[in-house]
Amino acid sequence: MRCDVIRFALSNPGDVSGLEEALASGSIEAGDIVAVIGKTHGNGLVNDYTRGYLTLSLSLLIARHTGETPEAVRKRVPFVFSGGVEGVLSAHYTVFTAQSAEAGSGEPALAIGVAFTPDYDPGDIGRQHQIDTTATAIREAMASAGIDSPSDVHFVQIKGPAFDTDDILAARHPLVSDNAGRLMALGRAASALGVGKALGEMPADAAVEAAVLKDSSLFTSVGSCSAGTEVRCNEVIVVGMSRKWSGPLAIAHGVMQDALDISGIHDVLDALDMVADPQLDERQAKRLRAGFIKCEASRNGQIRGRSHVMLTDGDIDQQRHIRGAVGAIVASVLNDTALFVSGGAEHQGPDGGGIMALIVDRETN
Amino acid sequence: MRCDVIRFALSNPGDVSGLEEALASGSIEAGDIVAVIGKTHGNGLVNDYTRGYLTLSLSLLIARHTGETPEAVRKRVPFVFSGGVEGVLSAHYTVFTAQSAEAGSGEPALAIGVAFTPDYDPGDIGRQHQIDTTATAIREAMASAGIDSPSDVHFVQIKGPAFDTDDILAARHPLVSDNAGRLMALGRAASALGVGKALGEMPADAAVEAAVLKDSSLFTSVGSCSAGTEVRCNEVIVVGMSRKWSGPLAIAHGVMQDALDISGIHDVLDALDMVADPQLDERQAKRLRAGFIKCEASRNGQIRGRSHVMLTDGDIDQQRHIRGAVGAIVASVLNDTALFVSGGAEHQGPDGGGIMALIVDRETN
Amino acid sequence: MRCDVIRFALSNPGDVSGLEEALASGSIEAGDIVAVIGKTHGNGLVNDYTRGYLTLSLSLLIARHTGETPEAVRKRVPFVFSGGVEGVLSAHYTVFTAQSAEAGSGEPALAIGVAFTPDYDPGDIGRQHQIDTTATAIREAMASAGIDSPSDVHFVQIKGPAFDTDDILAARHPLVSDNAGRLMALGRAASALGVGKALGEMPADAAVEAAVLKDSSLFTSVGSCSAGTEVRCNEVIVVGMSRKWSGPLAIAHGVMQDALDISGIHDVLDALDMVADPQLDERQAKRLRAGFIKCEASRNGQIRGRSHVMLTDGDIDQQRHIRGAVGAIVASVLNDTALFVSGGAEHQGPDGGGIMALIVDRETN
Amino acid sequence: MRCDVIRFALSNPGDVSGLEEALASGSIEAGDIVAVIGKTHGNGLVNDYTRGYLTLSLSLLIARHTGETPEAVRKRVPFVFSGGVEGVLSAHYTVFTAQSAEAGSGEPALAIGVAFTPDYDPGDIGRQHQIDTTATAIREAMASAGIDSPSDVHFVQIKGPAFDTDDILAARHPLVSDNAGRLMALGRAASALGVGKALGEMPADAAVEAAVLKDSSLFTSVGSCSAGTEVRCNEVIVVGMSRKWSGPLAIAHGVMQDALDISGIHDVLDALDMVADPQLDERQAKRLRAGFIKCEASRNGQIRGRSHVMLTDGDIDQQRHIRGAVGAIVASVLNDTALFVSGGAEHQGPDGGGIMALIVDRETN
Repeated sequence: MRCDVIRFALSNPGDVSGLEEALASGSIEAGDIVAVIGKTHGNGLVNDYTRGYLTLSLSLLIARHTGETPEAVRKRVPFVFSGGVEGVLSAHYTVFTAQSAEAGSGEPALAIGVAFTPDYDPGDIGRQHQIDTTATAIREAMASAGIDSPSDVHFVQIKGPAFDTDDILAARHPLVSDNAGRLMALGRAASALGVGKALGEMPADAAVEAAVLKDSSLFTSVGSCSAGTEVRCNEVIVVGMSRKWSGPLAIAHGVMQDALDISGIHDVLDALDMVADPQLDERQAKRLRAGFIKCEASRNGQIRGRSHVMLTDGDIDQQRHIRGAVGAIVASVLNDTALFVSGGAEHQGPDGGGIMALIVDRETN
Repeated sequence: MRCDVIRFALSNPGDVSGLEEALASGSIEAGDIVAVIGKTHGNGLVNDYTRGYLTLSLSLLIARHTGETPEAVRKRVPFVFSGGVEGVLSAHYTVFTAQSAEAGSGEPALAIGVAFTPDYDPGDIGRQHQIDTTATAIREAMASAGIDSPSDVHFVQIKGPAFDTDDILAARHPLVSDNAGRLMALGRAASALGVGKALGEMPADAAVEAAVLKDSSLFTSVGSCSAGTEVRCNEVIVVGMSRKWSGPLAIAHGVMQDALDISGIHDVLDALDMVADPQLDERQAKRLRAGFIKCEASRNGQIRGRSHVMLTDGDIDQQRHIRGAVGAIVASVLNDTALFVSGGAEHQGPDGGGIMALIVDRETN
Repeated sequence: MRCDVIRFALSNPGDVSGLEEALASGSIEAGDIVAVIGKTHGNGLVNDYTRGYLTLSLSLLIARHTGETPEAVRKRVPFVFSGGVEGVLSAHYTVFTAQSAEAGSGEPALAIGVAFTPDYDPGDIGRQHQIDTTATAIREAMASAGIDSPSDVHFVQIKGPAFDTDDILAARHPLVSDNAGRLMALGRAASALGVGKALGEMPADAAVEAAVLKDSSLFTSVGSCSAGTEVRCNEVIVVGMSRKWSGPLAIAHGVMQDALDISGIHDVLDALDMVADPQLDERQAKRLRAGFIKCEASRNGQIRGRSHVMLTDGDIDQQRHIRGAVGAIVASVLNDTALFVSGGAEHQGPDGGGIMALIVDRETN
Repeated sequence: MRCDVIRFALSNPGDVSGLEEALASGSIEAGDIVAVIGKTHGNGLVNDYTRGYLTLSLSLLIARHTGETPEAVRKRVPFVFSGGVEGVLSAHYTVFTAQSAEAGSGEPALAIGVAFTPDYDPGDIGRQHQIDTTATAIREAMASAGIDSPSDVHFVQIKGPAFDTDDILAARHPLVSDNAGRLMALGRAASALGVGKALGEMPADAAVEAAVLKDSSLFTSVGSCSAGTEVRCNEVIVVGMSRKWSGPLAIAHGVMQDALDISGIHDVLDALDMVADPQLDERQAKRLRAGFIKCEASRNGQIRGRSHVMLTDGDIDQQRHIRGAVGAIVASVLNDTALFVSGGAEHQGPDGGGIMALIVDRETN
């Protein structure tokens, strides 16, 4: 198998012209598409409908080419969109394809697999059930990707459900919180513990409901979790390296210890034999296929001893603040603004920091 | 003479405890204070009252120590506050003092001078009158700073008036615009042309009313212009290097060609014999006394060929977006978040870019 | 002919379940649908994509039932959505149907007609061309509605284009403004003058480009104009009373002199033989089929001699403020929150006021 | 004694010119001022500094006239400011004075008393201690007002502390919540239970910590509770009717059952012999001295069966939504926009509704 990764600019959340041209020209086969991850124009919070708009638009387009119904496409292909392109960031979506390919060099190459948990009730969010079903789905996705060892997993993207007031009032099970935004955080947190459990990043008996949003020493270094009202289960995408796959693409990952940790970015580049001095030059920047970053405002209200205002701002949500800041920092090193930068990094990277994964073309172009 | 530069953290816009302790301990003499520049917690737009709150609080404190009235202090000392500490930025204020000192080494040292234009009517904003009176005030401030050559000026900070709806309706002269936000932009722009004219950065006959917000090829590389409802004239602070002053502090400046131009930051550090690899280490970061940055969202809606959303966002003003982004980038290189980062860089640096000036202690500590 | 008007709740901008059930049950024939007007969840400003999302969702649904393509549906049926359900307002959409019917009583009944102008370039916005083509489209829509006299027109809804930065930079003609929000205002204003011209509310030689956003004494009392990036021409819906139509529905309209003018609301109710004392009781409220309101923040910054902050708020746009306020006032009298309340009332009603039109069922239920 | 109530317009939070003129002209004696309640320009959330700015400005002004220090004034006079003048509302402050007066007619007249609780630690907020100390302070304020019966109390205004991240991290006692906004809600809620307990509106054994933000059937009909970072204790103002006082002013109060309950407004007017038909005419409106309203977005996400978006909006806080909506509704009936409309009505009025109190001059002018 061979995995390709293609980024398209997004002028508005209904603009699927980029993929449309690629499908029309035959450079992408609709049936090869296994996942799409993107950043849309909304606020990234509960009332962000740009994620659903793009999901609908892309599933219609793909269905038109595969002959499936749009609903069938959405059941097969995870569409993981995070709202919010604050500051210098640029809205885009990244299409992952997998296709049969002649055997490669035997060297590890980019590999991808997807899986889905059962649908969740609002009362399931933040619970052990969500942790465990997520861990199971990750193992399924690893198997489907042909990745045997957790150490070969470099990125796990999860999109879980968010609920509006109507959903919350109709919940069948008791809720951990009846606050819509808080439920999003609980869902991201439980999902992150599910990643950590599946990959052995934390003891299985530590990845428990009681630790959700409580024990920030527990975190995954490869899992990125989002939530949105447009899905009802946890959609899971696992990306890593496998000798069963071929092709020029590679992925590496690392953590940012805090919002200013640019050494963390350079470390990931280093693992990919790239050098930013102080910024990737144009030639190297062109080798970048996708960048995924999770980040959050530090909960003690400080960065390296100085106060920030992100936690108490009533006009701009803390996630919008931190995405704009960390997104700009990473963009300035990578010389690329079409990055997936997502807030809400509960149990994803160290407290106040985050994680990052980069996919690059190893061949010089 | 000798100029000192001391930064204080600001927990809220009425918190002057930092300077209060310094005055109580005698480490600063109230009478030596010549200017204060700071970043406050507000949105940095027309309805940002945090600037006025800090101005009142500081003038009360200083007046209590000098025996002046607060009004007299405000007439003598420019208080230039810019609202908006988006993302990682930290609210703070920087106090500039000047005191008699024994003759130094004869080497150039940090020098400062201030001046004030006459009060403006809303109808004066964006006009030739504002350009010319600003230029005159800059020359006065240079003289007061003992700086003879424009090439020794590294930073000019101007704070001019903003007007609310009542002011605008009461204007005595015809207005260039009756939109409050637009008037702020016009005022910053005309002030920037005043800087360029005074320092010979542009031909005097180019710094004309007709070019205001029209000809973006005209810009100053040292002038930073803000506007707020708490002042009625242009307050001017000139900072540079002069052999008439002594002390360990130095200032350098440069431009950022666009929002991602981290080479521009490294160039300024280079001029000050500092190295960020990729970030100033803690020891070097401690030598930083203050950093001043102006930036703006590029008006073509793109950064290096990719779209941004800053110009068409109805929820977050473009200035808040760009401050958060560029502020984070500069902070990540300087290892310091208490930076003066201000949006609205009309004619201040190249289109879509901005300017920066850093004050450092040349002596190793 | 007979016109029916059915409102559906909208839980999110992709939720078309209400109409879906009505089509499935046969209570509405998809081919009878002539227009849809609604309020969606977005901010109602340039970057509001909820309008496009609902347009796509509804056109897909209708196309599925009529056998047309969604594109053909969008060419035939105006979908006029305004973002912003601030405060007590409730997201919804109102479907207008027209079907053959046996001759009625000969009394005037609700009548509807639609028309479309040619597509506009950004450079056409705010120009005489937009005024004149809009006036022409209104006369076409009147003809199609079988309404002969302008005095029988009680509501004209227009949805025109908004442009993002890319569009603006690609304009073929010189622009009246290169600011996206300003272009929306210019388009609404020119369209309103087109209404006034077509209906004889103002002298034809007064409805000129030079008056756009300049002469606020010129206004229509029946025209409501919105703008959004999801359309490229002016879509025009004319609603009035005609003896060529039958059925129990009726429409009346009036103006609000300012934001607090509840007498204006009572006057419209009075014309429809309804009484709010002080609020429509539940029985009367059920007779209400739809309410359309345009409003705006008074440009002198005052309401009845007291200041408001709407014009200078950098956190909440003035349109969001005024929709929330006037929407609540009207809702409190009508006992109904599913109202179409739209800001940006340039030349629509008196300065600082607005217009309203109500459709009711004249038969007691 | 005789209580007077004077409202002043507020052009910005540092504008005390209205009271300054009244003090200069002698129409108000600085020493007679017992309380000030007002609405300022901020967002009314944690990072709203306009409340502190006005508190500082007014205490400086009063101190200059009484010879006290500003700190002493702030210890004696409660300054209760609520941020947020959304929509049609107008920023203002209302000064309450009490002065010796010849015995009146023996009829009840407006009476006022104030008191202060001890300072609170963040860990005290939402606790039994806050409920009980608030109840004690209310009884003290009643005694000071010469009001014997709880039924003669028509308005209790409480301003308690809000805490920023630094404060929260420095808390000495365990916190009910470490979320700054949640702490504000807990503080308002516990204070409201304190009012209900002191006035016998609920059984004393029901006004317990366990009910805070849990049992919404418990509510006060006269208590209005706000929170802000500018105070550290609960400041309590009790306003009612007493035969020990004289003068033409009177107060009445009532509840709004939900956001659209305009009958509730008419009931309060009725108790004061005023008639809105449908709006107070100019003559009656002039008799209005002050209006106080608490309101909140209904927690089930609905108003009279239709959904609202206030609880899940990531761009505009629910308090800003509801203040703008209910403020406009009340203003449209009272023909007055300088109203104290405050969100966060936990245990203040029925769930989804609120309370209102009006002070009027009973003598025709």
